Amino acid sequence: MATSPMQTDPTLSPLPWPARDEHLTPFLPLVYVAWSDGFLSSTDMERIRTALRDAEELPEAAVTILESWLQPEAPPSPCELAALREGIREVAGHVSRKELKSLVSLGIALARAQAADEGGWATAKGQQVLEGVEELLGVLGAEAARDLTAIAEEVPEPPEPAVPFEPEALRRVLEGKHAALSARVMDLLANPEVRVPDGLPTPIARERVLAATRRIAAEGLGGLAFPRELGGEGDVPGSIIVFETLAFGNLSVLVKFGVQFGLFGGSVYQLGTERHHRALLPRIASLELPGIFAMTERGHGSNVREIETRATYLPECQEFEIHSPTPGARKDWLGNAAQHGRMATVFAQLVVKGEAHGVHTFVVPVRDDLGNALPGISIEDCGEKVGLNGVDNGRIAFDRVRIPRENLLNRFADVSPEGKYESPIASPGRRFFTMLGTLVAGRISIAAASVSAAKTGLTIAVRYSARRRQFGPSGEPEVPILDYLTQQRALLPAVAATYGLHFAIRDLIDRFADVEGDEARARVEVMAAGLKAYASRHAQETLQSCREALGGRGYLAENRLGVLREDTDVFTTFEGANVVLLQLVAKGLLSEYRDLVGDLRLWGMVKFLGELAGEEASRLNPIRSRRTAEEFLRDSDTQLDAFRFRESRLLHTAARRLKHRIDEGMDSFQAMNACQDHLVHLARAHVELTVLESFREAVSRASESDGEEIGGVLDMLSDLFALSRLERDRAWYLEAGYMEGGQTKSIRNLVNSLCGELRPFAGVLVDAFGIPDVVLAAPAAFNDPAV
Amino acid sequence: MATSPMQTDPTLSPLPWPARDEHLTPFLPLVYVAWSDGFLSSTDMERIRTALRDAEELPEAAVTILESWLQPEAPPSPCELAALREGIREVAGHVSRKELKSLVSLGIALARAQAADEGGWATAKGQQVLEGVEELLGVLGAEAARDLTAIAEEVPEPPEPAVPFEPEALRRVLEGKHAALSARVMDLLANPEVRVPDGLPTPIARERVLAATRRIAAEGLGGLAFPRELGGEGDVPGSIIVFETLAFGNLSVLVKFGVQFGLFGGSVYQLGTERHHRALLPRIASLELPGIFAMTERGHGSNVREIETRATYLPECQEFEIHSPTPGARKDWLGNAAQHGRMATVFAQLVVKGEAHGVHTFVVPVRDDLGNALPGISIEDCGEKVGLNGVDNGRIAFDRVRIPRENLLNRFADVSPEGKYESPIASPGRRFFTMLGTLVAGRISIAAASVSAAKTGLTIAVRYSARRRQFGPSGEPEVPILDYLTQQRALLPAVAATYGLHFAIRDLIDRFADVEGDEARARVEVMAAGLKAYASRHAQETLQSCREALGGRGYLAENRLGVLREDTDVFTTFEGANVVLLQLVAKGLLSEYRDLVGDLRLWGMVKFLGELAGEEASRLNPIRSRRTAEEFLRDSDTQLDAFRFRESRLLHTAARRLKHRIDEGMDSFQAMNACQDHLVHLARAHVELTVLESFREAVSRASESDGEEIGGVLDMLSDLFALSRLERDRAWYLEAGYMEGGQTKSIRNLVNSLCGELRPFAGVLVDAFGIPDVVLAAPAAFNDPAV
Repeated sequence: MATSPMQTDPTLSPLPWPARDEHLTPFLPLVYVAWSDGFLSSTDMERIRTALRDAEELPEAAVTILESWLQPEAPPSPCELAALREGIREVAGHVSRKELKSLVSLGIALARAQAADEGGWATAKGQQVLEGVEELLGVLGAEAARDLTAIAEEVPEPPEPAVPFEPEALRRVLEGKHAALSARVMDLLANPEVRVPDGLPTPIARERVLAATRRIAAEGLGGLAFPRELGGEGDVPGSIIVFETLAFGNLSVLVKFGVQFGLFGGSVYQLGTERHHRALLPRIASLELPGIFAMTERGHGSNVREIETRATYLPECQEFEIHSPTPGARKDWLGNAAQHGRMATVFAQLVVKGEAHGVHTFVVPVRDDLGNALPGISIEDCGEKVGLNGVDNGRIAFDRVRIPRENLLNRFADVSPEGKYESPIASPGRRFFTMLGTLVAGRISIAAASVSAAKTGLTIAVRYSARRRQFGPSGEPEVPILDYLTQQRALLPAVAATYGLHFAIRDLIDRFADVEGDEARARVEVMAAGLKAYASRHAQETLQSCREALGGRGYLAENRLGVLREDTDVFTTFEGANVVLLQLVAKGLLSEYRDLVGDLRLWGMVKFLGELAGEEASRLNPIRSRRTAEEFLRDSDTQLDAFRFRESRLLHTAARRLKHRIDEGMDSFQAMNACQDHLVHLARAHVELTVLESFREAVSRASESDGEEIGGVLDMLSDLFALSRLERDRAWYLEAGYMEGGQTKSIRNLVNSLCGELRPFAGVLVDAFGIPDVVLAAPAAFNDPAV
Repeated sequence: MATSPMQTDPTLSPLPWPARDEHLTPFLPLVYVAWSDGFLSSTDMERIRTALRDAEELPEAAVTILESWLQPEAPPSPCELAALREGIREVAGHVSRKELKSLVSLGIALARAQAADEGGWATAKGQQVLEGVEELLGVLGAEAARDLTAIAEEVPEPPEPAVPFEPEALRRVLEGKHAALSARVMDLLANPEVRVPDGLPTPIARERVLAATRRIAAEGLGGLAFPRELGGEGDVPGSIIVFETLAFGNLSVLVKFGVQFGLFGGSVYQLGTERHHRALLPRIASLELPGIFAMTERGHGSNVREIETRATYLPECQEFEIHSPTPGARKDWLGNAAQHGRMATVFAQLVVKGEAHGVHTFVVPVRDDLGNALPGISIEDCGEKVGLNGVDNGRIAFDRVRIPRENLLNRFADVSPEGKYESPIASPGRRFFTMLGTLVAGRISIAAASVSAAKTGLTIAVRYSARRRQFGPSGEPEVPILDYLTQQRALLPAVAATYGLHFAIRDLIDRFADVEGDEARARVEVMAAGLKAYASRHAQETLQSCREALGGRGYLAENRLGVLREDTDVFTTFEGANVVLLQLVAKGLLSEYRDLVGDLRLWGMVKFLGELAGEEASRLNPIRSRRTAEEFLRDSDTQLDAFRFRESRLLHTAARRLKHRIDEGMDSFQAMNACQDHLVHLARAHVELTVLESFREAVSRASESDGEEIGGVLDMLSDLFALSRLERDRAWYLEAGYMEGGQTKSIRNLVNSLCGELRPFAGVLVDAFGIPDVVLAAPAAFNDPAV
């Protein structure tokens, strides 16, 4: 460094600053930047020095000094650089912001501020020389100047577009006719008895959860679906709304509630007859009789038809003997079993006089009033789970347990005292799937609860992302992380899908309430299976995105995203493993709802496959006229056409693939397995079409009755849902020749711009979910002092 | 039902069975199936009855009876159907399996078994009538017959292809030169002191984790990277292998270990000089001095350059004053802070004589020997986290805490007693990123640990899926769920990617050990950032798939998949949030490793953008000659070409998009944000190319030295990795015109068939990870009695 003139008086003025030299001062910002980030190579430095030597306008003395400042082998000391920066900043305080458009204009402004001669040499002759050097530096001059001076560009903040409606107005659109009930349940969730905090030790959590469930039952919300004459209100849709809303609270309470009233109570109600209803429903609704739904076995989860528990009729004493013949026959995963349940509805293979009649359901007492297991009943605790530890899951095995003949839930089949088996349904398959079909409300409920969990996660993540700032343009304040494209993409399409699923599930609840006839019932069952699988996957993915959207903050238990993810994780598995449910959906579509819903076996539907395989797929043309214009792709008819084409094409090609394999002699089970990914894709495509149709109807209704503004925002959201799903599946559309690369790229760009358009509404969109702070209970979302 | 002849003597023989009627018996299987699953409509029944009436070969009396059996308004009773089934089964026990090829052949066989006349009428004349009825039923006759008789088709089980090598042989390929060290650490993991179980209450977990870390330190494994003269072995690669292997055990122990030796010890070693090394490293290596790495602040995680903690030099007493000026300046997320740490390396903005010199690192005592916080130090516990609760994370604020001048870690900058700031690196940016760059070993370590966690999850999930059976072909035993395509797709590509990442990270460790020169160093830093982001995402996705692959069993805490997912979840966030790291990778590529690694600002690299934007993308042609043949797509050169084309094209288009926006006057920060998804895609493409290159080299090495069999399996795995990634990104290849729909469909089919080919090797592939049962500790994977 010895050769550098900067060394002459290092303590006072290491660079000749304030030099008041009209030739040198304009170069100072360039010199600073040349050194400050150290990305100039020796070659670059040499090029700059050559340029200076060639500049005739510059006096030789100045060239000599400048050259000495730019020797790679003699860099300035850090102190010199720091002093230069501080000196520039001091003078820069007096120059106007518009002088910051490049390093050259900054240099000239500095010279002008120092000298009386308005910048002298630089303005008159040297500007070209300076600009040559700036170009050689190869930096963005304006930003380098802002960075150096720490003076922000004078860009007025774009005014936040006013949101022309209150979140409450949008909430009314979401809740519709169920507004009063969901508000009532939401109030109840704020009640300290019901508000069980996360993370309690398991024994305490279990008791708190039981107490909370009792409190909810005391409000009459447990038996809502039961008949009026037995203390209920005959309100099946209402019971699902209650479940949906409880899902904003502690999810162990939700599942405990679902086990008691939906599964245990529901099986007694749906599979039993008056004698069971009168004796049990009032005690179930009040939680006087805590119960268990004992279907799944250790060896058989998805394949319920092959469960091994046996119920043998003994005509001599008019009793059934319930028995678990193998370790795999032990009933598993039963909520309420480890601790609180007194009675169970047990699914078992009925055997009468040596003849097997398939799976039937029996009411079996399992504990006495003191909570001790009854003789022949052995109960294990499942132990700690990944989540939902407030629910006492357990396992039960039966050792030749006797129950009265009347304990058969006999709505669909009965055994006479002398041992005659009777059923209004001759076909064993149809009988079995009719029994299982009565449990469809459970799948709809899980779909609805999944959407609620996604709403909670998104409320936390969107609110945090709008407040948390990190990084920003040079010299400006950091920006909210919700302004980043990747953050918007992680959250806003999920908000859109959450809205769409909300509307679709509400429509399904209506349809379920009014269902009549076999085909309509099959449609409801297929839709319930599809929406359960799709919504539970959506919740899982959304909660993971939300966790990551909060960065480290999302990893704190207090912000609840981990707990929400862990508690809802099993939603993808229980009430039907998703991959099995999606295959049921595909099979329902392939048989046009004529085959048995529930049965995964294919051999009975070859004729349907033949019909479908023979038909042409929907004749929709590839996206019309290769248009990529925004208004065309944002047209909901374009989107619906694309969704319909996909479902139809996947349906017909699946039929053809299956038929082809079967015709070649492949076992139908193997044929289905070979096409499993295709069938799952078909099912997802069907669900997405269902969601988009419901979403569009909701947009129309809102535009008519709730005003243009709300309709407009929902319209954008619906576009974002449709386009983000088309984007996700664009490979398929390209392969099918339905779209071309130009169109799929336009769709991607549109998703990006829709995220930007919806950004100002993000807050109101999650506020409309209407989750009070006390229920949300996540500090990061509302009261973190230092985001 | 009154009209049905089946009703005549319901208790004895409801259907005329054994009828010994040569005209009726052959129809019985058809009649059973017509009723059994109830999917025949009235129209279908009518068609069958018409066919029977038209059959001249059938006596009128038989037609009348058959017609009466097929009246939709008079179905058989369930008992009649059950009796018919049992009757058929009884006789069917005597017919040969090859008679089960249709319902007709079963019917004829039944007649033959009953009568002496070899089937009489049916064989001679009636076969066509029977076949007509079977066709109208529209079922798969062979499967219906197997289902009805419960006799399995006689298909010999395909012999399990013998795996021609032991898992140990494959393990040697994986471990290579580090085999001894990783075996030593694996042994240590089986030690009861080190084996901390999951799910302990937090206070106990913290003490057990500390004790385990002490035990590991006592083995000399903590200070492996430190110089020999200070008790270490100077073995940096070895220290990463230790970390990688510890990741098979309790992950809180892993992170505690990483905080103490990697972050705290590493920062003292890398940023300090001899005075710090001598005084501290031996006590750090022995864990006599538990320490804290205090970089992140509440307000600044990713944007470290803007942290607010200040270190002001006071020349009058030759001390620094460490101070947290705002709530956002509080150091956050510090491992070891809540309880055990005595000293911290604190990152703070250095101010000397009023001049700011950027972020520097200081050694600051925080607790006395009794564990009490020192004056001016306030410590909070972060509280419960989503996972890793055995690590005592905390927050620290400094209230004008004084430390001696010598506590500045002064490898890259120093302050003289009289207050002169000195540094061999003039540029403040380069100085900052050089300091941060020394922490690259941490990112490599997290990448390696992520892969280990994925190995644990896959070992559990593959072993379980090979044992658990559910559903199966008609009349046959249920099949292992690993035989299902969706299960294979969920697990086997993840196994392939895990192998690829393993090899890539091992290569990076080698490269890191030998690195020399700025550009090589930049390449290592970029690769570390990319592999950390990619591997941590891979672990997260894989563990989720594994959890779901176990169904409900995966939701039991004892099977560890939940804990693994929760503990590794934060790997996507700490040591650099993934989305930030991926942008660093993209920026490294865009500047061709010439710009500062670490700096996300773009203004300094406009010249590099200009160069790249001007160049043509790699001139690789679209996939040659539109070939879809298997051997072409399975050729690793084809795959490498495709990966290289993608990286190159994404790089050049990114440069052009950025340059275009900047030329139009957009702020470079906004320009980067507008292209954020593109940059992230570029980074991922780069990582995948890196992984594939390492994978191919490993395949070549193994084929040469470890035999054809091992080489062959690794070759298939590498194909599966490459093709499954191409499949995932096929939309991009289609859009880019590099592939056509026929090719991408072939790729999908190939992924499916590779899954099938690798299925027999699934067990040995996970066994080769070499995790002993006692370390794996998941009952479902090895000792669950009733899967």
